[in-house]
Amino acid sequence: MAQPRIILVGGGFGGLAATKALKNAPAEIILIDRTNHHLFQPLLYQVATSVLAPSQIGFPIRGILKNQKNTTVLQGEVTGVDKDEKCVFVSDADRQDIPLTYDYLILATGATHSYFGRNEFEEFAPGLKSLADAEATRNKVLQAFELAEAEEDPSRHRDLLTFVLVGGGPTGVEMAGALAVLVKTTLKSNFRRIDPASARIVLFDMAPRVLGPFSEHLSQAAKQRLENLGVEVRLGHGVDQIDADGVVVAGERIASKTVIWTAGVAPSPAGKWLNVETDRAGRVRIQKDLTVPGHPEIFVVGDTAALEQDGKPLPGVAQVAMQQGRYAGKLIHSRITGSKQPAPFRYFDKGTMAVVGKGFAVLQSWKIEMSGWVAWMVWAFVHLQFLATSGLRLSVFLQWIWTFLTGQRGSRLIVDHRASALKRIPVREAVPATGGK
Amino acid sequence: MAQPRIILVGGGFGGLAATKALKNAPAEIILIDRTNHHLFQPLLYQVATSVLAPSQIGFPIRGILKNQKNTTVLQGEVTGVDKDEKCVFVSDADRQDIPLTYDYLILATGATHSYFGRNEFEEFAPGLKSLADAEATRNKVLQAFELAEAEEDPSRHRDLLTFVLVGGGPTGVEMAGALAVLVKTTLKSNFRRIDPASARIVLFDMAPRVLGPFSEHLSQAAKQRLENLGVEVRLGHGVDQIDADGVVVAGERIASKTVIWTAGVAPSPAGKWLNVETDRAGRVRIQKDLTVPGHPEIFVVGDTAALEQDGKPLPGVAQVAMQQGRYAGKLIHSRITGSKQPAPFRYFDKGTMAVVGKGFAVLQSWKIEMSGWVAWMVWAFVHLQFLATSGLRLSVFLQWIWTFLTGQRGSRLIVDHRASALKRIPVREAVPATGGK
Repeated sequence: MAQPRIILVGGGFGGLAATKALKNAPAEIILIDRTNHHLFQPLLYQVATSVLAPSQIGFPIRGILKNQKNTTVLQGEVTGVDKDEKCVFVSDADRQDIPLTYDYLILATGATHSYFGRNEFEEFAPGLKSLADAEATRNKVLQAFELAEAEEDPSRHRDLLTFVLVGGGPTGVEMAGALAVLVKTTLKSNFRRIDPASARIVLFDMAPRVLGPFSEHLSQAAKQRLENLGVEVRLGHGVDQIDADGVVVAGERIASKTVIWTAGVAPSPAGKWLNVETDRAGRVRIQKDLTVPGHPEIFVVGDTAALEQDGKPLPGVAQVAMQQGRYAGKLIHSRITGSKQPAPFRYFDKGTMAVVGKGFAVLQSWKIEMSGWVAWMVWAFVHLQFLATSGLRLSVFLQWIWTFLTGQRGSRLIVDHRASALKRIPVREAVPATGGK
Repeated sequence: MAQPRIILVGGGFGGLAATKALKNAPAEIILIDRTNHHLFQPLLYQVATSVLAPSQIGFPIRGILKNQKNTTVLQGEVTGVDKDEKCVFVSDADRQDIPLTYDYLILATGATHSYFGRNEFEEFAPGLKSLADAEATRNKVLQAFELAEAEEDPSRHRDLLTFVLVGGGPTGVEMAGALAVLVKTTLKSNFRRIDPASARIVLFDMAPRVLGPFSEHLSQAAKQRLENLGVEVRLGHGVDQIDADGVVVAGERIASKTVIWTAGVAPSPAGKWLNVETDRAGRVRIQKDLTVPGHPEIFVVGDTAALEQDGKPLPGVAQVAMQQGRYAGKLIHSRITGSKQPAPFRYFDKGTMAVVGKGFAVLQSWKIEMSGWVAWMVWAFVHLQFLATSGLRLSVFLQWIWTFLTGQRGSRLIVDHRASALKRIPVREAVPATGGK
C-alpha cells in the first residue's frame, strides 16, 4: 500500500515544528516554502539595523531536515488549494500551477504586514517580514546617513536624519531601540559633517501605550527606556499620511526621508484558498484539533489560523505556531498509525519578552514581571536557544558579544541589487502538469 | 593658508592604501566610492559559493577610516574629471554632477569584467565584481538545485545541474573548485530526487592552460586537482555562443542553465575622464611616479593604470594596487610638506597564489613553487592578514574552520531582491551646485 502523502505549506516556526513532529511517520512528506530558508523573524530587526548578517537568522530548510528521510523540501509558491480533489497548486521559476495531491494538508503560511487599506504607504514606508525587506530597510537607513554626509548644506541634514517608525509593538520598539544605539555607538566618529547621535528617532502608535500585550507597568518601563535613549515616543494618534517628504500625524507634518512600517499584520490568503470561514482579519477559524470544520484532513496553524482559548483569541506569536505545528504533526502521526490521539490542543504560554536598546529588556511570564539587564540576559539566552542550528547559535552568540564589547555591528552594508537583480533561469515553454501520486 | 585638498576616487586596495599613507598629511582628504564598503575581492568567489556572508568581505570604508580625522568619506559616483579646472564631478542618490575641486587627485577606480565586445552574453553569464554580483550568482547556483529537485522528470535534471565557467584564471579555477566541494559536501543528503554530487562542472578557457600567470608545472597541478574533484577542464577553445540554453564551444553545444563569466577584465573609464593616452585595454599610461604625463597633480593607480617594469606590464592584482596607492600617498605627502621625495615607484612582487577546492592551493613566489595543503595554509594565512579589520579576520577564520570541519557553509541563502529592491530616497529637485573650496 502506498504511504499517505502529507503536504505542509510554509517553513516558518509552525511548518517546521509540524514537519519535525512527523519525523518517524510512515508517510511521504512534502514541505513547500517560497524561499529556501527558515527565517528567525524575531531577530529580523537586527538585520535591518546592521547587527546581524542575513545568514545568521536564515538557514536552508533542506539543511535543517537533511536527515529526515521521509521529507522532501520544495521551493515554490502555493497559489491555491482544491479541497475536493485534495490537491495544492505550486508554481516555481520554471512552471505554473503544478497540482500536488495530498492525504493530509497543513497550512502554516503565516502573515505579512498590513497597511490597513492604505497600500499607497508601502512605497514610502517599507515593512519588515522577509530578509529582502530587512536588507532594503538596512540600505535605506544607512543611505540616509551617507546622503546627509555628502550634503554640505547643514540646513538640509534635518529631514535626512529623521527616522520615523510607525507602530509601537515589539518590532517597532526593538527597532527604535536598535536604531538609537546604532547612532550613538557604531556610527560614532564615522562622519565629519554630521553627528549621527543628533539623529531624531520618532516612534508612533495610535494606542495609548507601546507593547500592548505587556502589562501597563512594563509598557511604561519600555517607553521610559526608549526616551532615555533619545527616542521620541508619540502615542494616541495614528499616522494620517505618509509620502516622500515624511508623515502627517494629528495635523502636524514631520519631515523624514526614512519611514519604516512596524504596524499591523495580515494573514496569508489561506482562507481564500480554502474558501472557509475566517475571522474579521481573514484568519481561518479552526477547531480544537486545529482542523478546518468538515475537513479533518486539513490543518491550519500559526499566524494564519484563528483559535480562541478561554474566550480569548490566541496571539500571532512564534510560540503558538510552534506548539500548534507540533500538535498537528503528532495528531496526523497518530491517525496514520492508528495510535492514541492527543487531547484537544491547548496553548501553553511561556511568556513574552522585548528588548529595548542595549542591555535592557522587558519580560512577562505568568506572574513574573521583569525589566532590566537580567531580563535582557534571559531574552538573549531564549532567542539563541530557538535558532535553527548549533552553527547559528554559536555565530549569533559571538556576534552579540563582539557588538556588545566593541560597538561594531556585523553587517553594515549598502548593497544595491537593482543592477544585478536575480536573473531567473528563463521559464521554459509550458510542460504538461505532472504531480499526483 | 587653506590646506590643499586631495581627492581619492575608489575605496579598493589602491585607494585605501593611498588614504592611509596620507594619515598624517596636513591636507583635506576626500575619499569617494560608489559603495559604502571596501570589498575584499579575492574572496568574492566564496560569497558566490555560499561559504562567506557578504559582510565578511565587505566593511564600511568610513568605519576603517574613522580615526583618520583629516579624511571625509563620501558615497557617490564619479562621472567625470575636468583637468583644467581641477575638479571631479560626483553624483549621489540626491544630486547630479556636483563639482568638487582638488589640488591633488588619485584615481584608483579599478576594473570591471569585460565580455570582449560580446555584451549580449551578460544576461546569461553574469560576472563577479561586486557583492551584488556575488549574491546574484549565489542565487542562481542554489536556485538551479531547487528547480532540479522540484522537477519530477529526471530527464530534465541534466541541464539544470550543469554549471559552466567561462575563464580559467584564478577566479574561474577557485570558483570551479568551490562549486565541486559544495556539491560533494554541503549539499550532501539535502535532496531526495537529485544527487547534487552528480552535477557537471565545466571550466573553459581559450588558453592552452589554466592559471596563465603561474608556471606550467603549477598550472598542470591545478588542472589535475580540478579533475580529481570532478571538474571538466576544457582548454584551447573560446566560447562562441552563450544563450538561455547553454554555451557553444568549437561547434559543440553544452546545455546548461547556469553559466558564470570568470574571464576578462576591463578598466574603469578613468582614461576617458582624463582624455589621456591609454594602452590597448584602455588603462591610463602613467609615469614612474604614477602621475599622468603633464599633470603632476593627477595620480592613477591599480587596475586602471598601465605601467611597465623591466619591459613587462604590471599585472592587475591587489598587491600592485596597494603598493602604488601607498607610493602615491607618500609622494603627495612629501610634496605638501616639502620633504624628500621617494625614488621612482618599483613594484615588489611577493608572489601569487590560488586555492583549488578544499585543502589545496598553488603558490609561486620568487624561485619557490608549491602546491598542496602547505600552500593552502599559507594562502589562508595571507588572505586573513589582508582583511580590513580584526573583526573580519576573526569572523572569517572561525567560518573557515567551521566549514572545514562540518562541511556547512555560512550563507546558503536565496534572497529575491526584486520585490524589495532598494527604494531610493527620491531625488529632490535640482539644487544649485555647491562644492569647491
